[in-house]
Amino acid sequence: MFSPETYKNRRAELKKRVGRGVILLLGNDYVGYNYRDNEYEFRQDSTFLYYFGLNHDGLNAIIDIDNDREILFGDELTIDMIVWTGNLPTLHEQALQVGITDVRPASELKPYLDKARAAAAPVHYIPYYRAAHDLKLMEYLDIRPGGAMPSLPLIKAVVDMRNHKSAEEIAEIERACAVTALMHKTAIASARPGMKEYELKAIVENVAASHNMRLSFPTIATVHGEILHNHSYGNTLEPGQLFLLDAGAETPMGYAGDNSSTSPVDMRYTPRQKAIYDLQQAASKAAIDMLRPGVAFYDVHLQASRVIASGLKDLGIMKGDVEEAVRAGAHAMFFPTGLGHMMGLDVHDMENYGEVWVGYDGKPKSTLFGFKSLRLARPLEEGFVFTIEPGIYFMPELTELWKSQGLHKDFINYAEAEKWLGFGGVRNEQDYLVTADGHRLLGPGIPMTTEDVEALKAEGMKQ
Amino acid sequence: MFSPETYKNRRAELKKRVGRGVILLLGNDYVGYNYRDNEYEFRQDSTFLYYFGLNHDGLNAIIDIDNDREILFGDELTIDMIVWTGNLPTLHEQALQVGITDVRPASELKPYLDKARAAAAPVHYIPYYRAAHDLKLMEYLDIRPGGAMPSLPLIKAVVDMRNHKSAEEIAEIERACAVTALMHKTAIASARPGMKEYELKAIVENVAASHNMRLSFPTIATVHGEILHNHSYGNTLEPGQLFLLDAGAETPMGYAGDNSSTSPVDMRYTPRQKAIYDLQQAASKAAIDMLRPGVAFYDVHLQASRVIASGLKDLGIMKGDVEEAVRAGAHAMFFPTGLGHMMGLDVHDMENYGEVWVGYDGKPKSTLFGFKSLRLARPLEEGFVFTIEPGIYFMPELTELWKSQGLHKDFINYAEAEKWLGFGGVRNEQDYLVTADGHRLLGPGIPMTTEDVEALKAEGMKQ
Repeated sequence: MFSPETYKNRRAELKKRVGRGVILLLGNDYVGYNYRDNEYEFRQDSTFLYYFGLNHDGLNAIIDIDNDREILFGDELTIDMIVWTGNLPTLHEQALQVGITDVRPASELKPYLDKARAAAAPVHYIPYYRAAHDLKLMEYLDIRPGGAMPSLPLIKAVVDMRNHKSAEEIAEIERACAVTALMHKTAIASARPGMKEYELKAIVENVAASHNMRLSFPTIATVHGEILHNHSYGNTLEPGQLFLLDAGAETPMGYAGDNSSTSPVDMRYTPRQKAIYDLQQAASKAAIDMLRPGVAFYDVHLQASRVIASGLKDLGIMKGDVEEAVRAGAHAMFFPTGLGHMMGLDVHDMENYGEVWVGYDGKPKSTLFGFKSLRLARPLEEGFVFTIEPGIYFMPELTELWKSQGLHKDFINYAEAEKWLGFGGVRNEQDYLVTADGHRLLGPGIPMTTEDVEALKAEGMKQ
Repeated sequence: MFSPETYKNRRAELKKRVGRGVILLLGNDYVGYNYRDNEYEFRQDSTFLYYFGLNHDGLNAIIDIDNDREILFGDELTIDMIVWTGNLPTLHEQALQVGITDVRPASELKPYLDKARAAAAPVHYIPYYRAAHDLKLMEYLDIRPGGAMPSLPLIKAVVDMRNHKSAEEIAEIERACAVTALMHKTAIASARPGMKEYELKAIVENVAASHNMRLSFPTIATVHGEILHNHSYGNTLEPGQLFLLDAGAETPMGYAGDNSSTSPVDMRYTPRQKAIYDLQQAASKAAIDMLRPGVAFYDVHLQASRVIASGLKDLGIMKGDVEEAVRAGAHAMFFPTGLGHMMGLDVHDMENYGEVWVGYDGKPKSTLFGFKSLRLARPLEEGFVFTIEPGIYFMPELTELWKSQGLHKDFINYAEAEKWLGFGGVRNEQDYLVTADGHRLLGPGIPMTTEDVEALKAEGMKQ
């Protein structure tokens, strides 16, 4: 964890920004896998981690602005528990490490909130995401599931603070990126025909685990890169296919890395594969070149989209005026996702807060296909950390649907597009920081040219 | 999954046993890791798997005994979803694979239950274990969290059916055991001084993953075997220590394996380590020799306890009459856990149902320390599958506590016991099936003698 001062300063800043009332921050608890005591690995809530740093279950916290108190609610281990767990630092000792001296039993949380509510103090809480949070809000604040009214002042304050990464946070993210890069390099060097997707998933995840890191999100490891959210891993890698890996490590403190790579199952890319790969890289490079404070990420996404539309036009897959095609969203048949997303303590940072607050600064979001999947659009500021991940996909179901609806037929050459069905998809992804005068790649990076990927594969095969 | 007939027969049997009313079986959904769409790996509810076989989210089921209907409630993918996920079998197609023809939209579940309740049909449900289940019971049956009243006829019927493993279930469990054994052999061969516990955890879990299996429970991988539930992995393996691994694989269908092994960090056990290891093995062997239909597992536990108490007496750590010591529970300072637990679709099979039903056939459980941790006590029957895992631990906090309380001082030589603090703990564990006339080890087994473990380590080091 960071120093006590980091957490104290964050809480002081939050108090100043929210102004009045009581802030309730829920910690996470264990979730039963197939019965209560067979637990999924514990993951602390990211906002709780950001302000209170303690990384275990059984905790909730209050920042009482009106009475200038910061209180951790949780119970000390009993002797019966210590017999099984061995001796651990007390909760009071742990709390000191994050600058907290006021620790109270879990049972005192509800009475504290009752008193605050009786005194008409606003109780601020963020949007949550687990059934257990619904139960807690029901218990502590009498809120029926579905009836939560998260606090907008709190949302805005937390989002603005967490969106601007400090130097120590960036160092931590780079630790995640270093292991994430190694995961991808290992996969690229290991993939060969005949392997199962799950074998590569295992290899990749083992890299994270052997560095004492967890995954920042469920691994995508697939020869069907055009399926955007595959979580099955049963396919065999066949000659002629592309292998798309989207995977990242999470540090023990909870900070994420997130890379994607697309490598050939064979030793080299085919000319068709190289054409799409190079186009994806051109889109990526055009986007990265634009990154600096003040530039709207929406425009960066648009620029990457233009490069893709233009390249697909050169290949005869799209047609007509590129600018018009992009404005209409025709390119989104091949690039239906966003160019990138904020990253930090969550791989899609603060996704539970709502993209409109995190990535749009409260401005409305486009509802157009393709653009509606863009999680980040706002003008960039120093300290923002996000992914750059344009993709080019040939999706059979989407192609069939749009063709049957006659959609964008002035911009899409369906006869030509259909020749690419079965190709799969290409996505490469790295993580960037906006600096005072530009941007910086986070972590050591992964091979991004077809030449570098092929060289790594050749090297891998020699081992 | 098994054949449609398996699931049909199981449901028919369940209907017969429960007799009347409506059985509601909740499927599991995804749980958010740090926001809603960043999900933990999906795990279906085991009872849902047992009767309905379908291994994905968004499902609930009803077995309406009164009207002789078996209904799956869930929604088909929309075209918008298929665009992202690719084409998958429809829910109707999937349902046929488990012998179900009646599939209805998710929204029809509550009205169906409302109607049944209006007709005064009892609605049976089992004890659940996730906050999401509480929310579902609240939504479907107006049950406040904490107010659930699971159906005893349903509990008894399910427990009896699931306790008796069929041949196809046993084959599936043996698949889990085979990979579980490989996990342990790999760890034993790999462990050496200077490694971190998390590196061994990574190696072990990679074996499961590379066989397309998941973990049946969170891995214990520790040089502090006396701490029974360590889930930190930060220690370095030091010369002279023991490395205790408790880990198991789970097949894609959800069946568990569960082994423990205790190997020396060095190439060989020290004489002290061998003494305790051999004693643990003697207890294990005494227990296994007794396994056959009709024998109460409580008596098997007692016999293993006697062997341990007797051996500790030989070492000067315990004293007095062995039989009296065991009846009083004095041996439990060194063997505080149960001898074993049922295993099947859950590694502690049906733990959510309550041990009294699963392992005690409704009979009361001892509250005595040591015995109260015994999850299985009932007379054994053909088809029962369980672990055998006596352990010998030197737990500093427990020793200090009991000594300060003057507990069992006629049976424990505290001065001698204290000399063993820092030794750690020894547990070895394998999985057994009760057959018509005895028992059978499940899976290929792991090295169990000190000689075999040392030979495997020597072999591992040569690689």
